[in-house]
Amino acid sequence: MTDTPSSRPFEPQHIAQPLATLRQHAPLVQCLTNIVVANFTANVLLASGCAPAMVDNAQEAEGFAAISAGVLINLGTPYQETAQAMRAAVRGAERAGVPWVLDPVAAGAVPWRTSIALELLAKHHPRIVRGNGSEILALMGGQGGKGVESTAGADQAVDAARQLARQHGCVVAVSGEVDYLTDGARAVRIANGHPHLTRVTGAGCSLGALMAAFAGVTQDALLAASSATALLTVAADDAARACQGPGSFAVALIDRLYTLTPEALAQGIRLA
Amino acid sequence: MTDTPSSRPFEPQHIAQPLATLRQHAPLVQCLTNIVVANFTANVLLASGCAPAMVDNAQEAEGFAAISAGVLINLGTPYQETAQAMRAAVRGAERAGVPWVLDPVAAGAVPWRTSIALELLAKHHPRIVRGNGSEILALMGGQGGKGVESTAGADQAVDAARQLARQHGCVVAVSGEVDYLTDGARAVRIANGHPHLTRVTGAGCSLGALMAAFAGVTQDALLAASSATALLTVAADDAARACQGPGSFAVALIDRLYTLTPEALAQGIRLA
Amino acid sequence: MTDTPSSRPFEPQHIAQPLATLRQHAPLVQCLTNIVVANFTANVLLASGCAPAMVDNAQEAEGFAAISAGVLINLGTPYQETAQAMRAAVRGAERAGVPWVLDPVAAGAVPWRTSIALELLAKHHPRIVRGNGSEILALMGGQGGKGVESTAGADQAVDAARQLARQHGCVVAVSGEVDYLTDGARAVRIANGHPHLTRVTGAGCSLGALMAAFAGVTQDALLAASSATALLTVAADDAARACQGPGSFAVALIDRLYTLTPEALAQGIRLA
Repeated sequence: MTDTPSSRPFEPQHIAQPLATLRQHAPLVQCLTNIVVANFTANVLLASGCAPAMVDNAQEAEGFAAISAGVLINLGTPYQETAQAMRAAVRGAERAGVPWVLDPVAAGAVPWRTSIALELLAKHHPRIVRGNGSEILALMGGQGGKGVESTAGADQAVDAARQLARQHGCVVAVSGEVDYLTDGARAVRIANGHPHLTRVTGAGCSLGALMAAFAGVTQDALLAASSATALLTVAADDAARACQGPGSFAVALIDRLYTLTPEALAQGIRLA
Repeated sequence: MTDTPSSRPFEPQHIAQPLATLRQHAPLVQCLTNIVVANFTANVLLASGCAPAMVDNAQEAEGFAAISAGVLINLGTPYQETAQAMRAAVRGAERAGVPWVLDPVAAGAVPWRTSIALELLAKHHPRIVRGNGSEILALMGGQGGKGVESTAGADQAVDAARQLARQHGCVVAVSGEVDYLTDGARAVRIANGHPHLTRVTGAGCSLGALMAAFAGVTQDALLAASSATALLTVAADDAARACQGPGSFAVALIDRLYTLTPEALAQGIRLA
Repeated sequence: MTDTPSSRPFEPQHIAQPLATLRQHAPLVQCLTNIVVANFTANVLLASGCAPAMVDNAQEAEGFAAISAGVLINLGTPYQETAQAMRAAVRGAERAGVPWVLDPVAAGAVPWRTSIALELLAKHHPRIVRGNGSEILALMGGQGGKGVESTAGADQAVDAARQLARQHGCVVAVSGEVDYLTDGARAVRIANGHPHLTRVTGAGCSLGALMAAFAGVTQDALLAASSATALLTVAADDAARACQGPGSFAVALIDRLYTLTPEALAQGIRLA
């Protein structure tokens, strides 16, 4: 099975369109994420036109998920209470038909979070699973990367991603030099992005949050994940041109997420 | 009952004066705040000339409150342990006569934190309550906003703010296009600020922290809350002129909080 | 006992050399740090060429420490669960021979964290202890500073640092206008740095993380601590020349950590 260029499910214009819808609806995105990237994630969502809310305690997570447009479960720094909150949020989201995104940070490299990710996958149905190559391989039994960093390219995780997507009826998005996204049948390859994205903490994590946001305004989860990926990586391309290192890159990235129009986004997307 | 211009309790010069005192005393401000904005809040306080300390565990919060100049209780991401710490900090502050500020983030929109806010209000006496329109309305029985964002303008919360201030003998500060601040008798309306403040996470939360700082060096809590509001929003006006989006706005805002003089602050304040 | 210039254990060139090794190995650094600075610390490590991972829960901390190159224990915002994780991480690190760094934030000023710091020192063996003057004095029975800020210069803590280093067979690094580092026998004084470092939250905390990183690639802990100090403070010198306040300073600092070469670092170091 190969993904030939002719099997491209979306053209750039198609992928850029949901950005207009996002800005119009300003979806409420509940993020159960880690202490390292909560600030950056909220700023990425705000700059892009969403309404983030980091409701991640066990008392409130379930109810809040039910009134959100999308929910992010990010396993970067789980604790007893926030792990409970994640389980509750997923229950709340599924009962209300709200899409949720799983970002299994460092799965395979650290055992407890790996078991939480597998538990959520076994009992529930994420709309999208997002990770780097090592994390996606780990969910299919692989070994994991170097802490939170991948030791496998997106290429090496293509088969695992396709299998995972089919097993769970979800979209799987693998970050890498070329991002690979699949729903098990269709596949999208996006070649935008800049190495600085790997030198700013939370770039990948905020991509998961953007996927939850787009899934809240777009029925087709593969399109939602593609739109989120395109928005972040095209903005990164532009930010990289204006920066002097990863510090000013992160600032310019937030600025660009705010100013990028659907038209400019469509022009910037490079499908592989 | 109306607040006519002639009822203005302070002129701009008056509101700007406490900034000099703040810089001189560098008040120690204990912040029990949320994981999203802790970093930004600390940087806002440091740039403004304060000494922030985020002591938010149940063992240390009470004792530390007693030696602080001001205490912030912000309900953005409460957990079991930090909620206990908040109760302890408020006890410690009140026993030592240290002013504390309540920021009931997302009150009305999420139940547990709403009950914590109401519990603290019922048993204790904040010097200042700070929130957006929806949050202030929620403390008086209203419904809350869209997650952490307000669905009500400051205008709509004027009556609720006045009542709340009278019931609890505190100052109530409502953020909005025009900020409204009242102690139940007097009222201040500050028309500075820029929409980017709503596109940077933690702008409102850091305003609560600044109020705790100013309350630590200023006897009149309405003046303290007004000085804090003026400092942040005038700095925001200046930052907005120099920025290219919410990312560079946040950076310029921190820079401007550091360079703004009491004289420039007085000149920048626009009372409504 | 005096440290005469002739007793200088390292020349600038020597101190700069480990930066090349750091960039080559990209050491995995486990940080158990506080909610205020986790983001900035990760970005400092990433910009410098390391692989940060903030694994700070009680289930995973011990195992992860054993596969890390260096571990940071920072007591900025300890909680029940993270304090347990710190104990576990230290056990895991020592069993595997992985160097760990203790940053006793606000020791002396707040009781619980002081007792955790003393407990870890009594039972275990940090490779490096890093703090400001007040914190180092507090570990030897002194009173602590104003919250997280020092009320004692590095000068005043020289004797305490030397004693602490001898008692525990570790390096002690004291931040101040001139940084003082000692292993009890040798001493290094580094005169770089800029006051803005005290106006950006997490500058000191990220220095502790850099020390854990350098200790992971450098056998001599005094050299490792010196290299980390030089890298951060020389980058700060350069960043200060380009900035307009503490906001743009922090951005420029991250940029400079990324671009600084070992050669430029050697040229920038000023030993006192």
